Amino acid sequence: MKKWISPALLVITFILSAIGHYADWDHTLQFVLSAVAVVFVAGFLGRATESVAHYAGQRLGGFLNATFGNAAELIIAFFLVKEGLFDMVKASLTGSIIGNLLLVLGLSIFAGGMKFKVQNFNVTLAGMNGSLMVVAVIALFVPAMFFNTHSITEKDTDVLSLIVAGLLIASYMAWLIFSMITHKKHLEDVSEAGKEEMAHEHAPKWSRNRSILYLLLATVMVAFVSEWLVGTLETLTERFGFSELFVGAFLVAIIGNAAEHSAAIMLAMKNKIGAAVEIAVGSSLQIALFVAPVLIFASYFMGDTMDIVFTTIEIVAIGVAVFIAKSITQDGSTNWYEGLLLLTVYLILGVSFYLV
Amino acid sequence: MKKWISPALLVITFILSAIGHYADWDHTLQFVLSAVAVVFVAGFLGRATESVAHYAGQRLGGFLNATFGNAAELIIAFFLVKEGLFDMVKASLTGSIIGNLLLVLGLSIFAGGMKFKVQNFNVTLAGMNGSLMVVAVIALFVPAMFFNTHSITEKDTDVLSLIVAGLLIASYMAWLIFSMITHKKHLEDVSEAGKEEMAHEHAPKWSRNRSILYLLLATVMVAFVSEWLVGTLETLTERFGFSELFVGAFLVAIIGNAAEHSAAIMLAMKNKIGAAVEIAVGSSLQIALFVAPVLIFASYFMGDTMDIVFTTIEIVAIGVAVFIAKSITQDGSTNWYEGLLLLTVYLILGVSFYLV
Amino acid sequence: MKKWISPALLVITFILSAIGHYADWDHTLQFVLSAVAVVFVAGFLGRATESVAHYAGQRLGGFLNATFGNAAELIIAFFLVKEGLFDMVKASLTGSIIGNLLLVLGLSIFAGGMKFKVQNFNVTLAGMNGSLMVVAVIALFVPAMFFNTHSITEKDTDVLSLIVAGLLIASYMAWLIFSMITHKKHLEDVSEAGKEEMAHEHAPKWSRNRSILYLLLATVMVAFVSEWLVGTLETLTERFGFSELFVGAFLVAIIGNAAEHSAAIMLAMKNKIGAAVEIAVGSSLQIALFVAPVLIFASYFMGDTMDIVFTTIEIVAIGVAVFIAKSITQDGSTNWYEGLLLLTVYLILGVSFYLV
Repeated sequence: MKKWISPALLVITFILSAIGHYADWDHTLQFVLSAVAVVFVAGFLGRATESVAHYAGQRLGGFLNATFGNAAELIIAFFLVKEGLFDMVKASLTGSIIGNLLLVLGLSIFAGGMKFKVQNFNVTLAGMNGSLMVVAVIALFVPAMFFNTHSITEKDTDVLSLIVAGLLIASYMAWLIFSMITHKKHLEDVSEAGKEEMAHEHAPKWSRNRSILYLLLATVMVAFVSEWLVGTLETLTERFGFSELFVGAFLVAIIGNAAEHSAAIMLAMKNKIGAAVEIAVGSSLQIALFVAPVLIFASYFMGDTMDIVFTTIEIVAIGVAVFIAKSITQDGSTNWYEGLLLLTVYLILGVSFYLV
Repeated sequence: MKKWISPALLVITFILSAIGHYADWDHTLQFVLSAVAVVFVAGFLGRATESVAHYAGQRLGGFLNATFGNAAELIIAFFLVKEGLFDMVKASLTGSIIGNLLLVLGLSIFAGGMKFKVQNFNVTLAGMNGSLMVVAVIALFVPAMFFNTHSITEKDTDVLSLIVAGLLIASYMAWLIFSMITHKKHLEDVSEAGKEEMAHEHAPKWSRNRSILYLLLATVMVAFVSEWLVGTLETLTERFGFSELFVGAFLVAIIGNAAEHSAAIMLAMKNKIGAAVEIAVGSSLQIALFVAPVLIFASYFMGDTMDIVFTTIEIVAIGVAVFIAKSITQDGSTNWYEGLLLLTVYLILGVSFYLV
Repeated sequence: MKKWISPALLVITFILSAIGHYADWDHTLQFVLSAVAVVFVAGFLGRATESVAHYAGQRLGGFLNATFGNAAELIIAFFLVKEGLFDMVKASLTGSIIGNLLLVLGLSIFAGGMKFKVQNFNVTLAGMNGSLMVVAVIALFVPAMFFNTHSITEKDTDVLSLIVAGLLIASYMAWLIFSMITHKKHLEDVSEAGKEEMAHEHAPKWSRNRSILYLLLATVMVAFVSEWLVGTLETLTERFGFSELFVGAFLVAIIGNAAEHSAAIMLAMKNKIGAAVEIAVGSSLQIALFVAPVLIFASYFMGDTMDIVFTTIEIVAIGVAVFIAKSITQDGSTNWYEGLLLLTVYLILGVSFYLV
């Protein structure tokens, strides 16, 4: 692909979706335009983050990568929170987690398995990731369980939500300290090769200042197209009879994660399955341990606290995704059939969400 | 045991249960006669299948073995579907799965552990089996969860059931391709020895044509005795006050699986624990991924679709059985105490089902 | 610490709490005094048990240690049963299990991880412990599930409770036979070093007769202070507005387990993480497989059977604790972050129980 094609498409889709928004074109068309724009802009944001991270040095760079990795999802969700669409926020968080654990991971493992008989990666990291995912599920499951079996006041629900959100962010900070400082070497063998590969793939040779400028520019662009996208969703659910749950959990989540999808699959096909697993699992952990709690605090400061009580089927979907992903990754070895199993579970959930 | 005893008993019990059925003897007596006949006929069907498989060559033979392995259960369940006894079908499928994972596996591991301190088998296969079992549980759990928490129309429930059934059959076909073609060698080390042993044990030296004839004959006999057996169940539940759940999940399931029981235990006592595990786990996977979905399609073509919505306690029973079986087999090593734990869980479920 | 300090504090707190009880001091003060006395007396009972076990020889000694290990909890719970406070009994059993699996284990792994980068222990034992914990959860989960989804008579519930309790005690007895007789060597490598260490730490050089005398004395003292403690709980819940659930699951459980806490943490900091894990996990297994069923039989003989039906959130709490503890211990290696995760889950449960 020629070098100038990607930036050109970025600019064109961004401008088109801007025109569509301000000229109030048909909402379905607006949705398609802004969805495509989000994919390109999120990719741009990803490259800018990596470039800045490159100049920032390993430690701060790792932190930046980890924090900005899901910036697009965070910004989209922020506008959903601002609109008070709490149900769709939770649906899109759910969709983002299961999309990473089932669709991204499933496609990566399947595609990698088509080229290589068996692919191996670091068992220690897989085990730690598995335990973290279990904690994330517990943190969503326990409040919902208490909420469903007892009559808790709204105020207590908010208090519980803020405390659990605080505990999750603290766990995430501690995880960054663990994986980037105290036990960096311990987990390293896997990821280094893959991450370098990733850097070569994506990171353009931008100067330091240009990188920072691009990071700011990309963040602003994501903010704009996210708002335009969110503005069309209500019409979309009405017009096509989709449930908020389906739109949030499948449409929004797939759009927001498109960048991870392509990166992870390309890495898997180059036999860097460890790095692909890290993108997919790491991204879902970030959603659960960082993005979701940050949104709860954001809603609190905006005056109307979004509680942490997910619906039963959202928790079932997340729990099921974590359980099968943990079962498949815990031996540190993958094959095409395991990828297929993840995709099968994704389809079962997708059909169920669609029919509800 | 003399060679002619087993065929003689087969013929005698078949004839007796036929007379019992057509002369309309007491239903309890009919039940006992046809139950014994099912056990012998199912054993005959198993030997005929293996003999045909022997002539069919490894690949087709493996496929035949896998497909006909639960033919008796499939045929019994088919007559239950025909009678519209959907609840008992699901109960018997549940009972078949937990019977294999807890009773057959538990007895095998316990009996093997009495003779050998520790028994080992292939960890890779155990891991793959574990993940497949998890997918099977998810495929039953998710539709039931959506059904219980949302108001879904009957038509949508049927659509969901057929799609999930299709996905399960596709997973099962892909598993046959994986385990018999693309990754045959990879999983082989365990099973080969045990399977040969099994073949020597059972397969009589029949000619090719005779084997095929016997396979057809056995299939027809199973079909007849299954129908006679099913005909007595309703009276049985009424007369003894057993619930349909208990009859389906324990009586029918134990009768239908008797052949697997004896084969697996004998293998375990010869230190072929890998083959015993494969029979027990493989059989339960076949029920969940092949027999159950085939019955759903069969009911659809017969005009009244049986949905895939199992009751909460059936799913709990299956989930619990999968979880403990996975926990015990995942390290590829067993001892008598682990067999005892499986049997304990089976007893807890049995008492609970009985008392409901 | 000087040798005479601990016995002196034991006697002083015991006498003070006796005076408080009989002079009917303020109930909050009585609670504090008897709580402190329980901690000291339970420690004394532990040392006396170990000393008697030392003279009894390895086998009987191991049995004594295993049986008296949770004597304090058993006796406290016995007086709760006697008062008919069944809900608080179950809450305190729940709290004891999650306290051991999350708080004791979490603090031990965290404290050990602060001094040592990675700590390792026997994987086989961890796997067996994990499977036993799963059976314990199943034994609590299945009756509750049947109870919640079907209308079962009180008599049937009692029958089910007694049968399951019997099965659990049988499993526990079989576990003692397995771990102390048939597979002692197999599990030994881990624990020996740690256990010796533990013995050196605690066991004073008492004569045989003196040890037996002290064991009897300590048992009687525990019985008294336990009754005094239980007597104050009702006032406490009323005065401070705590729920029975919170008092049982957190206050009573932490007081009853204080001795295990300090022993496990000290072992972990001496790099005997295997022994620390064994104390925490072994203690929670004992509660679930021995203490809880014994209490059910005790209540039956006292004329009013306590059923085995725990509340949904109690089972959720136990299930969640088992799941994360199993996930973290199954690779036989721990680090500070894994300790932190266990503590995070404990906090989430604690806040939720408090707010209900």
